[in-house]
Amino acid sequence: MGEFDIIREIFAPLTANTPGAYNLADDAAFLESQNLVVTKDLMVAGVHFLAKDPPDLVARKLIRANLSDLAAKGAKPVGYFLGCVWPQNVKRDAIEQFAKGLAEDHEHFRIALYGGDTTVHAAKGAPLTLSATFFGAPPKQGMTRRSGAALGDDLYVSGTIGDAGLGLMALRREFKFTTVDKASLAGRYHLPEPRLVLGTALAGLATAAIDVSDGLIADAGHLARASGLRAEIDAVAVPRSQGAAYWVAAQQNRWKALATLSGFGDDYEILFAAPPAMRRSVVMAAKASRTEVSRIGSLTRGDGVLLLDEKGAPILVPETGYDHFSKR
Amino acid sequence: MGEFDIIREIFAPLTANTPGAYNLADDAAFLESQNLVVTKDLMVAGVHFLAKDPPDLVARKLIRANLSDLAAKGAKPVGYFLGCVWPQNVKRDAIEQFAKGLAEDHEHFRIALYGGDTTVHAAKGAPLTLSATFFGAPPKQGMTRRSGAALGDDLYVSGTIGDAGLGLMALRREFKFTTVDKASLAGRYHLPEPRLVLGTALAGLATAAIDVSDGLIADAGHLARASGLRAEIDAVAVPRSQGAAYWVAAQQNRWKALATLSGFGDDYEILFAAPPAMRRSVVMAAKASRTEVSRIGSLTRGDGVLLLDEKGAPILVPETGYDHFSKR
Repeated sequence: MGEFDIIREIFAPLTANTPGAYNLADDAAFLESQNLVVTKDLMVAGVHFLAKDPPDLVARKLIRANLSDLAAKGAKPVGYFLGCVWPQNVKRDAIEQFAKGLAEDHEHFRIALYGGDTTVHAAKGAPLTLSATFFGAPPKQGMTRRSGAALGDDLYVSGTIGDAGLGLMALRREFKFTTVDKASLAGRYHLPEPRLVLGTALAGLATAAIDVSDGLIADAGHLARASGLRAEIDAVAVPRSQGAAYWVAAQQNRWKALATLSGFGDDYEILFAAPPAMRRSVVMAAKASRTEVSRIGSLTRGDGVLLLDEKGAPILVPETGYDHFSKR
Repeated sequence: MGEFDIIREIFAPLTANTPGAYNLADDAAFLESQNLVVTKDLMVAGVHFLAKDPPDLVARKLIRANLSDLAAKGAKPVGYFLGCVWPQNVKRDAIEQFAKGLAEDHEHFRIALYGGDTTVHAAKGAPLTLSATFFGAPPKQGMTRRSGAALGDDLYVSGTIGDAGLGLMALRREFKFTTVDKASLAGRYHLPEPRLVLGTALAGLATAAIDVSDGLIADAGHLARASGLRAEIDAVAVPRSQGAAYWVAAQQNRWKALATLSGFGDDYEILFAAPPAMRRSVVMAAKASRTEVSRIGSLTRGDGVLLLDEKGAPILVPETGYDHFSKR
């Protein structure tokens, strides 16, 4: 029983008469009568962040993970509703730190808290559980969907891939990075940077987009499936940070290492498709938004995702993204 | 450290520039630019429902608790976003039952699911945690606020008070009710009835309203505080069901029993204020919406809540409503 099967088989049928729910197969919904893009993301201690992570960073990660969904849709964030279920033994100081983190990102992203709910677990040891529902204004060209990619479209991704996963490894001391790389990778894990400016620049240009939260390969699969196509990704073209390059060089099997990077979650980059005729426009959108964008593959006939080596042969992919129902 | 202190002292300052957040002191927020009433309620197993409650009833309680907030605001529900954090050992069958409950109430209330998020706890034994963000259309007279009551206004409540709390007692076998009363009280605990039709009828008539979820006394306190007044409630006038009357009769101290009933949570009735000149209109609104409404007191100068006996003397109130941060 996988997370995506559950959504597709059990919950999606409930939305049969609601076009704006997009069959629960997009990052956000569209409330047509209100012209509003809405997204909701949960975060649970021990799943999406570490129980000992500083509360202000947890708050900001919650905000940014949700903003990343709006960014992929080309939407301009407006505000949100917040739900907090605190552990039984929570201290006032932790809640204050959490609120301080919210306040920082309110200012940074010019968003407003509108309401919510706060409660405490009755079960001893039950983890901090967070929920946020964000809403934003769609771009005038309309919300960028997951499902619009056409056969032959190029596939692009912003920033670098795999850093948050390596950051978690670094925090858990599972690999020894240089001090500089460790700080940078841990930063990617704790404090993602939603690509809001790029998302806006891509509105009307990208034929399909998704934010990379489950992992590049998994999210490429979501985009390809929604568009009725296959995603082919050139493993060497997937952008890597200095820390990631260092880690890959230290691995015995280079292809397996590249595949692992593309399987890590929490990147919060934008993966998008655009027609080959628009390559120059994509370069200009990247430049205008001061965001690195890499062309990493294309949409082809078929289904699923192929990660290809330098000769164009498929690499066996050990990991297909984070599935909350399967990883236990 | 109380729940309401935390909201008032730590979270409310974050909304200083957001008029529609109403200082986090209302059941719902108002998104002015979208003309949308929005509310968000959390439910956690072991806090808001029993871990062994049937999943379809839990789903419907989640929907109805949120609809009750919209009802008190006079809003017409449209749709919602759903967040589920399942326990580690969840079975597919339980999720299917849950979705069946959602589907039933979708039809009953003509609401639509728009999106959400679903994940699984990493911690063993961590409880099912649910979150819903509901949105609705405000009445043409404008959303009924908590803060509009005037000095001398009457205080009314719909339905009967204390039944859900007694239902929980019955389910836990803490008191022996007749079979009929037990079924009826347990029904009030499991399946609240949001007073949507009454809420609509009260728009423009009620000067202030709140849904009774924390308990009559606590919620009267919220309404009174928001309106800058004191709530005085005639304990004998608080409406009781047959089961509640039976329970009160079995208690040694009648006044203490009446106070306890008014302290129980989960009633999901509407508590509202209206000017004495509008008594006839209130009766007609109740009649038109086929909902029992009782006049139980008034708003006076001062603060807090007084529960009065038949001679008008204050009853010592043992319970001031459910506070998630204090009850541990």
